[in-house]
Amino acid sequence: MLKVEHIGIAVESLAVSVPLFEKLLNTPCYKQEEVSSEQVQTAFFQQGETKIELLEATGSDSAIAKFLAKKGAGMHHIAFEVADIHAEMARLKEEGFVLLHETPKKGADNKLICFLHPKNTNGVLIEICQEIR
Amino acid sequence: MLKVEHIGIAVESLAVSVPLFEKLLNTPCYKQEEVSSEQVQTAFFQQGETKIELLEATGSDSAIAKFLAKKGAGMHHIAFEVADIHAEMARLKEEGFVLLHETPKKGADNKLICFLHPKNTNGVLIEICQEIR
Repeated sequence: MLKVEHIGIAVESLAVSVPLFEKLLNTPCYKQEEVSSEQVQTAFFQQGETKIELLEATGSDSAIAKFLAKKGAGMHHIAFEVADIHAEMARLKEEGFVLLHETPKKGADNKLICFLHPKNTNGVLIEICQEIR
Repeated sequence: MLKVEHIGIAVESLAVSVPLFEKLLNTPCYKQEEVSSEQVQTAFFQQGETKIELLEATGSDSAIAKFLAKKGAGMHHIAFEVADIHAEMARLKEEGFVLLHETPKKGADNKLICFLHPKNTNGVLIEICQEIR
């Protein structure tokens, strides 16, 4: 893994949380993007080489809506950038981790992504991602 | 804020979780350190410019023991490095954030640290930290 690409944070409302994180991080939100397949609207902040990604649900079937209902707003996942997502998925599977999908999916921010089941990762939802070139 | 200095993850047992994260991140744990004032034993992994810090409670009064009892193992806090912790604490207080202590504390990894109350930060426990020079 190359770096922490982003940290995902579930929020009830971007209208409230974007200004809050702009004050907290002392930096502007530089992009918002909808990922309709995941029913989320995202907002990004840069901190060094890592992004903070706020996630608002746009539908009740969204994984973020379910997370908010169960746990409330807060840290949702950590995404690590990898050089070769297919090779890394094979390595992790070989090590006994459980991939939530067999092939990479298209995520926000021009990325191929794959999530790991948190039951095998100390309760932490882990994403690996690779920039689409 | 300069970068994501580390992400803190609460674990039941470093003996179990250190080997797990070594496999997950494909990198060795490079340091363990006890912070007796906080009743925690920590273990560190480097990922780009950011560290992953695993936290095991060493006493039942530890904030980590209480977190584990309430929420179970998982993401605990995000720490941002700042250039001047006193100036940043003043800025955040002025913006309406609630500091959990009035003066910086000595944390793990040769840092001065300050936590913000998560009720004002979207449920995310935020730490700011500055290297002790």
